[in-house]
Amino acid sequence: MTTATRQSTLTTPSDREILVVRDFDASRDRVWRAYTQPELVAQWWGRGNKLDVERYEVVRGGHWRFVEHAPDGNTHGFEGRFREVTPQERLVYTFEWDGMPGYTILETATFEAIGPTRTRVSARALFFSTEERDGMLHSGMEGGLNESYAALDRLLATMS
Amino acid sequence: MTTATRQSTLTTPSDREILVVRDFDASRDRVWRAYTQPELVAQWWGRGNKLDVERYEVVRGGHWRFVEHAPDGNTHGFEGRFREVTPQERLVYTFEWDGMPGYTILETATFEAIGPTRTRVSARALFFSTEERDGMLHSGMEGGLNESYAALDRLLATMS
Repeated sequence: MTTATRQSTLTTPSDREILVVRDFDASRDRVWRAYTQPELVAQWWGRGNKLDVERYEVVRGGHWRFVEHAPDGNTHGFEGRFREVTPQERLVYTFEWDGMPGYTILETATFEAIGPTRTRVSARALFFSTEERDGMLHSGMEGGLNESYAALDRLLATMS
Repeated sequence: MTTATRQSTLTTPSDREILVVRDFDASRDRVWRAYTQPELVAQWWGRGNKLDVERYEVVRGGHWRFVEHAPDGNTHGFEGRFREVTPQERLVYTFEWDGMPGYTILETATFEAIGPTRTRVSARALFFSTEERDGMLHSGMEGGLNESYAALDRLLATMS
């Protein structure tokens, strides 16, 4: 057991995609619950910032909406809808940030058990255009995502 | 003045797009109002079927949601969010049908005055994938769209 933060790997499999792969030191069931139970999502998705989970209907066709409260007092809303929910295996959902409404991203999160207490999460984002993909790449998303994943590491270590 | 129904022209400018162009015998202002005022949209969008305009916030970032009541008693929900609202000129918004949640389409409707009482509407739909575009092409969308446009013709003739 190590306390070092694991690294995520970001690649661009096509000109409209971003793929981020990250391993977590927890069972797939534990990671799945951290992703799908609203009271758990609220503890890591906002990277340590307060997160209001206004809506989180983890079912095909369900809507989700989070509001993150930044330290500077600003709030940032995010929302979308579930295309697919396959328990323990895959979540497919749309994602958009209030600041760029209608710039919808299709995200696919895949959960793979690579050991009894190790799980690989692959998060693939598909954009309507290369320009929109590149805008996300230059937005600082990788740093934010790694902060979320570090918060998820901490949460997973406390779960049973 | 003729009472013949105008024809729409459907093309596929790229492998992820559908473009439908249709002329209407009305001023651009009248067509714009028929597209953006909820009580007017309710009269044509549903092709003669009852349409509940549950939400129609025609402003950047605004949400919209319509429920169409089919003659067989079924209801069909549609929703999305506005990316851009440029009065009299352009609406850009996302679109999805409840039956295929998360299969989001980015639609751009452009309004062009080609005379004081004639307006060209170009509706461009961009899909996440060619497969999703082809699914729409084979869904009977063209017939449904022409029914909506014929209903819009009738509404425009009554507006002042």
